[in-house]
Amino acid sequence: MSILAIGLMSGTSVDGIDAVLVEIKGSQENIEVEIKDSIETKYTLEERKELLRVSTEETSDLQSISSMNFYLGKKYGEVVNNLLKKSGYTFLDIHFVSSHGHTIFHQPYKGSKTLDKANTLQIGDISAIADTTNIAVVGDFRTADMAAGGHGAPLTSYIDYLLFSNRDTSRVIQNIGGIGNVTYIPKNAKREQIVSFDTGPGNMVIDEVVFRVSDQKETYDKDGQYARKGKVNEDLMLFLNGHEYLQVKPPKTTGREVFGSHFVDQIFGKFGHLDANDLIATVSDWTAVTITDSYKKFLISKGNELDEVVIGGGGSYNPYLLERIAYHLPDVKVGIHEDYGISSDLKEAMGFALLGYQCLKGEYNQLPSATGAEHSVIMGKISYTQPEAFDRMIAVRRD
Amino acid sequence: MSILAIGLMSGTSVDGIDAVLVEIKGSQENIEVEIKDSIETKYTLEERKELLRVSTEETSDLQSISSMNFYLGKKYGEVVNNLLKKSGYTFLDIHFVSSHGHTIFHQPYKGSKTLDKANTLQIGDISAIADTTNIAVVGDFRTADMAAGGHGAPLTSYIDYLLFSNRDTSRVIQNIGGIGNVTYIPKNAKREQIVSFDTGPGNMVIDEVVFRVSDQKETYDKDGQYARKGKVNEDLMLFLNGHEYLQVKPPKTTGREVFGSHFVDQIFGKFGHLDANDLIATVSDWTAVTITDSYKKFLISKGNELDEVVIGGGGSYNPYLLERIAYHLPDVKVGIHEDYGISSDLKEAMGFALLGYQCLKGEYNQLPSATGAEHSVIMGKISYTQPEAFDRMIAVRRD
Repeated sequence: MSILAIGLMSGTSVDGIDAVLVEIKGSQENIEVEIKDSIETKYTLEERKELLRVSTEETSDLQSISSMNFYLGKKYGEVVNNLLKKSGYTFLDIHFVSSHGHTIFHQPYKGSKTLDKANTLQIGDISAIADTTNIAVVGDFRTADMAAGGHGAPLTSYIDYLLFSNRDTSRVIQNIGGIGNVTYIPKNAKREQIVSFDTGPGNMVIDEVVFRVSDQKETYDKDGQYARKGKVNEDLMLFLNGHEYLQVKPPKTTGREVFGSHFVDQIFGKFGHLDANDLIATVSDWTAVTITDSYKKFLISKGNELDEVVIGGGGSYNPYLLERIAYHLPDVKVGIHEDYGISSDLKEAMGFALLGYQCLKGEYNQLPSATGAEHSVIMGKISYTQPEAFDRMIAVRRD
Repeated sequence: MSILAIGLMSGTSVDGIDAVLVEIKGSQENIEVEIKDSIETKYTLEERKELLRVSTEETSDLQSISSMNFYLGKKYGEVVNNLLKKSGYTFLDIHFVSSHGHTIFHQPYKGSKTLDKANTLQIGDISAIADTTNIAVVGDFRTADMAAGGHGAPLTSYIDYLLFSNRDTSRVIQNIGGIGNVTYIPKNAKREQIVSFDTGPGNMVIDEVVFRVSDQKETYDKDGQYARKGKVNEDLMLFLNGHEYLQVKPPKTTGREVFGSHFVDQIFGKFGHLDANDLIATVSDWTAVTITDSYKKFLISKGNELDEVVIGGGGSYNPYLLERIAYHLPDVKVGIHEDYGISSDLKEAMGFALLGYQCLKGEYNQLPSATGAEHSVIMGKISYTQPEAFDRMIAVRRD
């Protein structure tokens, strides 16, 4: 029996909501997923403003948090209904919706007050989605991992495992967003063999350099055109390679506080006189090196095989970056998600559909090795508001 | 097959947590429930202070809301574990836990901002309870009703209906917790004839007045002793009777935001010079009046028969309050839950076990006639973090 589900993702960039309708077959080790349709819904300016306000400690308030939880739940429900209309399916065809919700707070460590706990808060009430759609909804995944002592992130490692584990091929799945993150999946992997960490910068340094040399007119190096016109400066490369994060052993995570504008200030302080395209070429090649050196230093040199690199995120649309990664890994096949029939843009929404599927089956859908949790958990909360939605949900279990 | 469940209730009075272990048999129309064991856990002063701080618009903040959601979830989990230890059962015996959570915000109407929605916010993360207990947890009931246009309250109406409906006697079941709530069950009632609404304050105003006049040394008027020593002040009574909530037609709900410390600030602002016992006597008698006037205005004057009042909640232990209610209703029999063989202290926790039971069976567990919802819904969210917890939960469905 095949299951039809809708996955919903609202990213921390507060751009909008990705919704994807998928067909899922099989279970944990042999899961198959096929995208049937999708829809992208931008947040309005007012919604974006309010979400940013509610997610900011200084401007947030109790009433708005509670109210936006319902507003978003209803909005996500309408997104589902719009996707159904577009696709020609009806709610009666759909077994469940799975929603990430929108993160308004995430603190993966205990604070200083005696009652503090590590915590995370996603809004977009799943019962409001269920009532708006007449479909059972799974959501609010991160809290279970965090209750088990995990960081509540990354959740995509498990998704990568479901999508890319292969009996004969050892793969890394490399996301290149603002930050670079890798999930290593050895051939014929068991869950506990999965390794995941942040490799370093993704597009963050490249984008900031482009932003500055273009007098704030451009925000990224489209198609790697500027990098391709420049040439790598060895002194700058030497300086960049000295960054201490590259020496830190995994598990490790990083962010804008390490590779943001402060770091780019240092680059311009010492190398601001260089040709703009040379600057872009160098930080681009260096970004590739941080990724490939991570594999060499922390995976391959430890005896881990590596056959294929599968790149996703915004960086997968920068051919220069891809070429440099391939150049630094001559014996490894380098491709992008789309080469495997998976849309990089929709992977997260699709991934949450899979997490919901596992939840409804009563199967673990998290990796303690990736999140740092003390034990495996089934993440997700479930809501259905109508007996018929309950009945369709039950079918997932019987599969 | 009989089901073992644990119900958890944390009331708006922020006293503590009631936990009750019950055996449940049968289904909706022929449900049987028997209490096996129970435990009462007081909040510490620090917990109470923090919960009140987090529930107050002016002092609440994003980090604390998110953190207390986890803190309470873990605390509720420990309460369950303590009850199990006391009872001699283990988590392997229990099919599910059902938790009300702690309400930190409740606004059953749309606010003035364009993105506002009616909303309610209960904390005490159910995945944190599930991880702490290794039992499946149902909770966060109110949001589904509110998403369907209801007031998210009262939820216990259908429990009252099951426990108290009678072929020959028309009854009101009056709960006096922080807030006062009534369920009217006419003789030989059908589900859709049940009427329920919040009458106004329960113990909330009395308790806060006692707290202030005792220099924060006492939290309630034990046995109504202070009220009995005082006398009702007519000016204050007139002021109190002017409260607009008393004129609002049912269905209606209210909470701490209406009858909490802000309101008591107003009382002290105008009448702080009165004798302490007179203050207590007046707010106590007024509380009785808000209850009895609700019956007169919204039930009896509409032609509804009323034979018996069955009082429950903390207020049922305040003989002064009971006397005043009886005084204002000379032709009606006034009793307490225990007169009917039902523990008032445990009724709510027991009630939430029944709501969870219905949720897991995929059956409606709400009355639109009581909450004002546009349609019937199944309330509740479900979380289980271990496959074995999932398996035990499934047994409820098969029953």
